[in-house]
Amino acid sequence: MAASGSSSKSHAFQAPRGTRDFFPPDMAVRRHLEECWRHTSTHWGFQEIEGPTFEHLDLYTVKSGPGIVSELFSFERSGGDTTYALRAEFTPTLARMAVAKGNSLPVPTKWFSIPCLFRAERPQRGRLREHVQWNVDILGLADPSADAELISVAVAALDRLGLDPSQVQVKYSHRDVVARLLSGLGVPEEKLPTAFELLDRRDKMPPEVFTEKAVALGLDESGVQRFDELAHARTEPGVDPSTLGDLSSDDLEQLVATHRSLVDHGIADWCHVDLGIVRGLAYYTGTVFEIHETSGKERAIAGGGRYDHLVELFGGPSMPACGFGMGDVVLSLVLQDHGLITPDTLMPQPDVFVVCADDGAADQLIPICTRLRAAGLHARRSYKSTRNVGKLLKEAGQHRARAAVILGGELQEGIVAVKDLAAGTQHDVSLADLETTILDMLASP
Amino acid sequence: MAASGSSSKSHAFQAPRGTRDFFPPDMAVRRHLEECWRHTSTHWGFQEIEGPTFEHLDLYTVKSGPGIVSELFSFERSGGDTTYALRAEFTPTLARMAVAKGNSLPVPTKWFSIPCLFRAERPQRGRLREHVQWNVDILGLADPSADAELISVAVAALDRLGLDPSQVQVKYSHRDVVARLLSGLGVPEEKLPTAFELLDRRDKMPPEVFTEKAVALGLDESGVQRFDELAHARTEPGVDPSTLGDLSSDDLEQLVATHRSLVDHGIADWCHVDLGIVRGLAYYTGTVFEIHETSGKERAIAGGGRYDHLVELFGGPSMPACGFGMGDVVLSLVLQDHGLITPDTLMPQPDVFVVCADDGAADQLIPICTRLRAAGLHARRSYKSTRNVGKLLKEAGQHRARAAVILGGELQEGIVAVKDLAAGTQHDVSLADLETTILDMLASP
Repeated sequence: MAASGSSSKSHAFQAPRGTRDFFPPDMAVRRHLEECWRHTSTHWGFQEIEGPTFEHLDLYTVKSGPGIVSELFSFERSGGDTTYALRAEFTPTLARMAVAKGNSLPVPTKWFSIPCLFRAERPQRGRLREHVQWNVDILGLADPSADAELISVAVAALDRLGLDPSQVQVKYSHRDVVARLLSGLGVPEEKLPTAFELLDRRDKMPPEVFTEKAVALGLDESGVQRFDELAHARTEPGVDPSTLGDLSSDDLEQLVATHRSLVDHGIADWCHVDLGIVRGLAYYTGTVFEIHETSGKERAIAGGGRYDHLVELFGGPSMPACGFGMGDVVLSLVLQDHGLITPDTLMPQPDVFVVCADDGAADQLIPICTRLRAAGLHARRSYKSTRNVGKLLKEAGQHRARAAVILGGELQEGIVAVKDLAAGTQHDVSLADLETTILDMLASP
Repeated sequence: MAASGSSSKSHAFQAPRGTRDFFPPDMAVRRHLEECWRHTSTHWGFQEIEGPTFEHLDLYTVKSGPGIVSELFSFERSGGDTTYALRAEFTPTLARMAVAKGNSLPVPTKWFSIPCLFRAERPQRGRLREHVQWNVDILGLADPSADAELISVAVAALDRLGLDPSQVQVKYSHRDVVARLLSGLGVPEEKLPTAFELLDRRDKMPPEVFTEKAVALGLDESGVQRFDELAHARTEPGVDPSTLGDLSSDDLEQLVATHRSLVDHGIADWCHVDLGIVRGLAYYTGTVFEIHETSGKERAIAGGGRYDHLVELFGGPSMPACGFGMGDVVLSLVLQDHGLITPDTLMPQPDVFVVCADDGAADQLIPICTRLRAAGLHARRSYKSTRNVGKLLKEAGQHRARAAVILGGELQEGIVAVKDLAAGTQHDVSLADLETTILDMLASP
């Protein structure tokens, strides 16, 4: 894949900076991710939706304030009075669509989407200007089992892609628990958002900067130390959060409820509590989670949580809701790190490759391909003028065809040769039996 | 589907004008089209590619001149010196990608893509500001069989979608043939582009305007009449173009070569010559075609042809090329017109729906769903608190599940009830045999 990083003057013939060209092997990988996402969401009972690639700019400022504008690609219709923006996230579109349904929205509503999203930022490893993101949301359920169900669909897709709990882990926490712990340390109510932000960025700054910012929250020396401990408090994978200690019964209850539902969903060993996870965005209200490579090498693979005020914010009814997003860029890097990306085997493989070894048979090349395709087969042919069977079969092999059909002089008698390219066997077949012969060959193990 | 046409002040919570929200039934239709397109292209040996959603604006002005800018949504990175545009067509991206491959580009290169495209125009029936377009291209082949192969992949997708040659027809022509005929009528060389444009728009103007514009080309009365005849000259579906009459042997040769290859591809009855088809764009060089509903009610479903100078125009080698685009908007209207859009049957259908009819079994609802999904099944469950089996089975039916699993008091003895919702039969099953029982039921006819 060609990810463009150039900003030279003669740019017209390059992809814009931070965007990607997907040649066939790259596209095979992208489709593989998308199919894993779609298959898993569907089997978990989620229904697919999609919205416009751009929205009214106001849709984003409502949720995130005017500060978001500099991170968006925005534009006007020439001569118009409306400003649009390329979507940077799918959640506002989802909320808008939920509000539009009004009272006809089923409870629960389980939706997923696989949109392209855009950021007007400087591209970095794992963060491009255009990426594909899997979004999964449950509207209408307040129970912790909904949070666990969301996590389970994310884990199931990663499992399907070949990852295991030693390679990736879901880190989860609960905003209420963290808020109570912070209050207990002496962080005043009005500084909780700043404290959340500091927690969210704790691993992106030197320890002395963390300490400085913790002091600015109003914490004394022991408070700073306990804040630092809180930021790094975590359980072992699959272990009951009661082991964390030092938590009130309210705190424990919220974390344990999620843990128990993760056990019910059969994914407890993929997950552990990490009280340093709070998610930067202000709109999260309950359970929050991020999925990380255990090596810590890459950015978060996915992030999400509960945002019970979201639909209300966009003018809809008060409604519990939770969701997550998983982008293709970090996920691809993680799969690459673990040797789980194999474009060659992901590219579609022809059932049959038709070649012509005799000039007299050339006019049957296309009609025979047409017959094979009409029988439901993925059929390709040689476009070369050579009649050398060795060269032509080599080409069939390069296409990784399962079978080759060789048209020779015997075609006048209604006979063609069929070669099983895996087994290496070849035999003559009556033209009338061609489709059934190949279908039988493909059905055999 | 909600296609937005409003431009009211309180627009923040509506989709932008000319764009669409795809709720689950709309998305099922969109995925159905995309899957038909992808399946057909793949079985015909085309490989999928994709590019960025926006490109450097210059990429579009190179091909189409500065006049194109007003039809594009363009924008700048704030503080940057680069102007981008949302892609209005895929061909420039394709050409850029082909040029980037240089000498490593295989001959032929058969690529397809299913991008979202954007037009900054006033939305009309069949033309929205955002749409999805199937693009199919063959690079490196000059033979008429390549044009026919392109047409055959388009026809195969329409066939797969349920259309037949009485409902849709491929109208094809050849720019060289039309140019020679126009010259023969007395149109001077420098006015050929204007004459092509007039032909392209012949059915969008009153006859007197057509006559007026034909006179402006320098034609006398008899020339205008013959021009009008030319604009409406067509063959019957599947019939040899020799029947057209009044054509030179050169003209006939070019049309007949395409016809013969359409016969080889088994699709001659889907196609007829229409000398009024020239395609508006200047870059077409040979065979051109459009696919129309035979009623003439809707706009063109698809359009394409040969553009042998395209890759060269973008800085690549001289290379024959042909391609077409088919958008989702007109195609959906045509399928609707013929009753071929059935969202209900296209939406994913659960294999099994799990319900709980006894409070004592409630804690097994999620674990049993998890087991069924682990067995590869599309499993949903009731989120309702009722334990009324009748109501719960009604819900399973609304989800169109194939089977229901009922958890009741017998779960304590390891027994659940499985109901075949199509057959109406129900029997008790040991929990240990649950997955195999359901898999067997699904495998039975």
